[in-house]
Amino acid sequence: MTINARLEELGITLPKAAAPVASYVPVAVHGGIAHVSGQLPFVDGQLVKGRLGEDVTLEAGADAARACGLMILAQLDAAGLLDRVERVIKLGAFINSTPDFTDQPKVANGASDLMEQVFGEAGKHARAAVGVPALPLRAAVEVDAVIALKDA
Amino acid sequence: MTINARLEELGITLPKAAAPVASYVPVAVHGGIAHVSGQLPFVDGQLVKGRLGEDVTLEAGADAARACGLMILAQLDAAGLLDRVERVIKLGAFINSTPDFTDQPKVANGASDLMEQVFGEAGKHARAAVGVPALPLRAAVEVDAVIALKDA
Amino acid sequence: MTINARLEELGITLPKAAAPVASYVPVAVHGGIAHVSGQLPFVDGQLVKGRLGEDVTLEAGADAARACGLMILAQLDAAGLLDRVERVIKLGAFINSTPDFTDQPKVANGASDLMEQVFGEAGKHARAAVGVPALPLRAAVEVDAVIALKDA
Repeated sequence: MTINARLEELGITLPKAAAPVASYVPVAVHGGIAHVSGQLPFVDGQLVKGRLGEDVTLEAGADAARACGLMILAQLDAAGLLDRVERVIKLGAFINSTPDFTDQPKVANGASDLMEQVFGEAGKHARAAVGVPALPLRAAVEVDAVIALKDA
Repeated sequence: MTINARLEELGITLPKAAAPVASYVPVAVHGGIAHVSGQLPFVDGQLVKGRLGEDVTLEAGADAARACGLMILAQLDAAGLLDRVERVIKLGAFINSTPDFTDQPKVANGASDLMEQVFGEAGKHARAAVGVPALPLRAAVEVDAVIALKDA
Repeated sequence: MTINARLEELGITLPKAAAPVASYVPVAVHGGIAHVSGQLPFVDGQLVKGRLGEDVTLEAGADAARACGLMILAQLDAAGLLDRVERVIKLGAFINSTPDFTDQPKVANGASDLMEQVFGEAGKHARAAVGVPALPLRAAVEVDAVIALKDA
């Protein structure tokens, strides 16, 4: 089954791959590894803005992390790499947080759970999840990824 | 000499490898590289909590970073990879910091010194050390790692 | 053309490669990949200090990010790797930010634009840019890098 078929089975529609705001690329491939740039959370085309511990609930934060994960998949799809995913190796999750918010793992699970849902065992990855005081465009979450690819 | 023998020689006891709180894995191996998830500092089974510049001293912060390093070794050990370490390539150190605290490198040295102590030349790594406003469970430090492995 | 010749053509002088403050190395090479430690911005030998949204303007921030990029090149040069750069794979940009500052991408472009200017297509990389509350020595920006190398 292709990953697009699997996504359809799961009722998941990928967002439109966002263009980088700047002088970098969404995905850089070298030596069978795809490095995916930090992705922001778009739900129904709207950026999810705000800060955990302030104006974003835990549930909304996890949804935002999942939206970042969907954007990672959309970037891989746009680069023609979605069906070449061999393993999700690493996710880096940056959570817009007040100094008092300490549930970064539960937020990041939104992206992690998505990867396992879509890729099964191959979706199980290493992860770092940390709080940050500010993100581009006031996004609630940013997630980047290291992905192993099968030969084309 | 095995790394466990070297640890014994140094008088170092590894902590119990912490289970991931969530839907990710402690170590993801691909292409001879182990990516170790961000590890939190446990000393005598207790999480070291707090913030540098606030309620954690520089010395306690460095000890916490060392404890994160020990947890990285414990995760490698639990995955059967400790004696396959060829090179510590990169550590990422996230230091729970007030806006005024600027000694992140001295804190991160707790983890870096440990790697050189245990692995010698092979323990010398690239590093990024940054302040963050908040970490999971209010941990004082989080460290992740990229490790090169010898063939099994 | 060598990269040093290209730099001369661009009128770019590399800074003196900064010594690591601590027990790590500026560049760790393994398997054809160079991991460059997080570099701080030095302009005319002076560290660029401060925080975006507070006492560092957007333009000064982008200049600082470019200075971090120049230091990455200086470290590669000092390690004898500058002419072996095959591809800039990934930059990680940590921007010292107030909670209200959300233009991290425009700041990070200082480093990203430099890479494209120096290496052309090979300089196009994946990137994550996030705000942080504090950086070593009160630096305004820190940038680390993953670089693919040609065989020696």
